[in-house]
Amino acid sequence: MQPRRKTKSVQVGPLVIGGNHPISIQSMTTSDTRDKAATLEQIRQLSAAGCEIVRLAVPDGEAADNLAYFCKNSNVPLVADIHFDYHLALTAIEAGISKLRINPGNIGGPDRVNLVARKAKERQIPIPIRIGVNAGSLEKDLLANFGGPTPEAMVESALRHIRLLEAVEFFDIVVSLKASSVPATIEAYQLLAQQCDYPFHIGITEAGTWFKGSIRSAVGLGALLWEGLGDTLRVSLTGDPVREVAVGQDILQALQLRSFGATVVSCPTCGRCQINLESLAFQVEQLAAAVHQPLKIAVMGCAVNGPGEAREADLGVAGGKGEGLIFRKGEIIKKVPEDQIIAALKEELEKLVPGD
Amino acid sequence: MQPRRKTKSVQVGPLVIGGNHPISIQSMTTSDTRDKAATLEQIRQLSAAGCEIVRLAVPDGEAADNLAYFCKNSNVPLVADIHFDYHLALTAIEAGISKLRINPGNIGGPDRVNLVARKAKERQIPIPIRIGVNAGSLEKDLLANFGGPTPEAMVESALRHIRLLEAVEFFDIVVSLKASSVPATIEAYQLLAQQCDYPFHIGITEAGTWFKGSIRSAVGLGALLWEGLGDTLRVSLTGDPVREVAVGQDILQALQLRSFGATVVSCPTCGRCQINLESLAFQVEQLAAAVHQPLKIAVMGCAVNGPGEAREADLGVAGGKGEGLIFRKGEIIKKVPEDQIIAALKEELEKLVPGD
Repeated sequence: MQPRRKTKSVQVGPLVIGGNHPISIQSMTTSDTRDKAATLEQIRQLSAAGCEIVRLAVPDGEAADNLAYFCKNSNVPLVADIHFDYHLALTAIEAGISKLRINPGNIGGPDRVNLVARKAKERQIPIPIRIGVNAGSLEKDLLANFGGPTPEAMVESALRHIRLLEAVEFFDIVVSLKASSVPATIEAYQLLAQQCDYPFHIGITEAGTWFKGSIRSAVGLGALLWEGLGDTLRVSLTGDPVREVAVGQDILQALQLRSFGATVVSCPTCGRCQINLESLAFQVEQLAAAVHQPLKIAVMGCAVNGPGEAREADLGVAGGKGEGLIFRKGEIIKKVPEDQIIAALKEELEKLVPGD
Repeated sequence: MQPRRKTKSVQVGPLVIGGNHPISIQSMTTSDTRDKAATLEQIRQLSAAGCEIVRLAVPDGEAADNLAYFCKNSNVPLVADIHFDYHLALTAIEAGISKLRINPGNIGGPDRVNLVARKAKERQIPIPIRIGVNAGSLEKDLLANFGGPTPEAMVESALRHIRLLEAVEFFDIVVSLKASSVPATIEAYQLLAQQCDYPFHIGITEAGTWFKGSIRSAVGLGALLWEGLGDTLRVSLTGDPVREVAVGQDILQALQLRSFGATVVSCPTCGRCQINLESLAFQVEQLAAAVHQPLKIAVMGCAVNGPGEAREADLGVAGGKGEGLIFRKGEIIKKVPEDQIIAALKEELEKLVPGD
C-alpha cells in the first residue's frame, strides 16, 4: 500500500481531517432539512450507526434557520451543503456549523468569497470549507476546453476554487473530486494530489443503488486508499444513508486502515464442504456484530485451508463431516457436532471479549 | 490506471487467460461433485449468469469419474480442483477437463509432477495448471521461516511450485496467491509480478458472506486491477456462487475493463430531492438489466448535479418537484410528471436499443 499522502490538517468540530488522523466516515441526510424532527432523527440514526460527520443540504433560508437547532442537538459535527447562495453560508456559520461545503467560484465574486471566508475564520475553531467538484456540474468553459468532464477539467475546477480561497488567505480547505466514472474519479484525485496538500474527501458520486453502488464505491475507494489518497470518505448510495456508514466501515476495515470490530472470514464452500456453512457464517456474523474489538473469526468448510486459516484467527471453526473443530488463538480446543458449533463459538467469544 | 501487466497467455478450452485477452470471470460449484445432476445444474446456472470458467472440487475418485460427463455437457470450460492426489489429476485430464488447479509441490515428488505435466501437454490444447497458493495452507517450513503466512511466504511457495513445473518444461501456468487479508493478498501479487510473467488468477479468499464479502472482494480486486494485475478473477462468497458472477462483472465494469450491459448511476438523494428517487432507481435498474449494450443511464434527484450528469449519459432523468426532465444523448427531450418517468424512460430505451 502506498504511504498515506501527507496533507494539512483541518478541524471539524472535535474531529480532525487529514494528517495522520483516522480516515473519517461521513454521510448525508436525505430528509427535508426544513423538517426539524425528521432531520434530527436521521442525524441521530447516522450517528448511532457510526457516522462521524453528518452533512445536510441547505437549499433555502428555512433550512438554514434550522441549523442552529441541529447543531445544538447533534452529537456529531455537522456540515452545511450549500450551492450558490452566500447568505446561507453566513447563516450556517452563525448557527454553529462545523464545516461548509460550498464552491467559492459559484457564489458571485471575490467580495462574497472574502465575506464567507472571513466569517469562517472568526470562529474559535475556524470552519473549514470543502470544495466539492462534481463532474455533473463543471463550469461550461472547462467542459468546452477539456472536451467534457475529464479528470483534468475537474482538477482545474478545483484549483480555481482553491485559488479564490487562498487569495483571501483562507487555507482550511478540504477538496473532493467526484464523478460517477470510477477511473475518472481516481485519476482526478491522483492528478490533484500532485498540486496541493489539502486533505481529500473521497467518494464515488451517484454510485447507484444499495448493492451495485456499494461494489462501485468499494472498487473506487479501495483503489484510492491503496494509493494512499483519502482523509475522509463518503459512500454515496441511493436509499437509506445509514447503509452508507456500514459500507464505509467495511471498506476501511478491509484495508486494515481502521477497525470497527470483528472480521468474519468464511470460505465460499465447495464440493468438499460437509456442513451447512452459509447458515453458520451468517450466525457467526450476527455474533460478531456485537464485538467491538478487532478480532478475526474464521468459518471454514473443510480440511484443506480450514485449519490453516482458523489457526491464524482469534477464533475459528473448520468443518468436517457433520462436525466442527473449534480453534482459539491457533490451538484446537475441541471438536463438536455441527449443531453445537454456534454455542461453542459463542462460549469462546465470551471468554475472549468478556462483556463486549 | 496502471497498464495491464504483460503476461504469457494460456488457453483454457476456447478461452485465453492472459496477454490482452479480456479478464475472465470464474466461479466454483458448491454441490457435491459426486452428484451428477446437482453439479451439472449448477454449472448451467453459473454459465447462464455469465460465468466463463467453472471450477469443480474433485475430492475423490467418484467425483473424478463424473468429470467426463460434466465436460461433455457443459458449455463453458471446466477446471478440476485437486489436492494431493495425482491420480485424480490424471483422471481429470483423460476426462477432457480444460484446466487443472493443483499444487505440484503437494503431490508426492518430481516423478508424479512429470507424469501429470506430460499428460497435460499431450492434449491438442495443452491443459494449463493453476498453482493456487492459499495463506491458509502454506508449507510449514515457510510459515516458520517467514514467521507466518506473509506475502513473501506466499510468493516463495508459488515460486517453488512454479520451479517444479518449469523443471519438467511445463509453462502453461496460471498463479493465484490468496489470503483473507486484503492488503496481504495485494502485496503478494505485487511481489510475484516482479518475478514471473505467468498470468494471475486473482481473488480474496474466504471473503465472507454475500454483502460483506462482496465489499471486501471489490476493495481488493479493485486495487489489484487498478495496479494492472489480474487476468482472470473469482469473487469468493459464502453462499450461492451465482452471486459471485454478478459481483465480478460489477467490479470489472466499475473500472471500465469490460462491459456487461448498462450502467445505472443514481444519486444518493439529499434534502434537495423532491421525487421518490430510490424507487425510481430500482425500477430503472430492472429496466437496465435487460440491456446488453454498454449504455449509461442516470437517475438524478435534483437540479444541482442532475442535468450535468444526465447530459453525459445516454439516457437520463433529473428530478424536479414531482416531475422529471428526460434527457437523451445530452438533449432534454421532455418533461413528464413523476408517475410517467419510468414509462418515458422505457420508451426511450427501446428506441436506443431496439430489440435488446
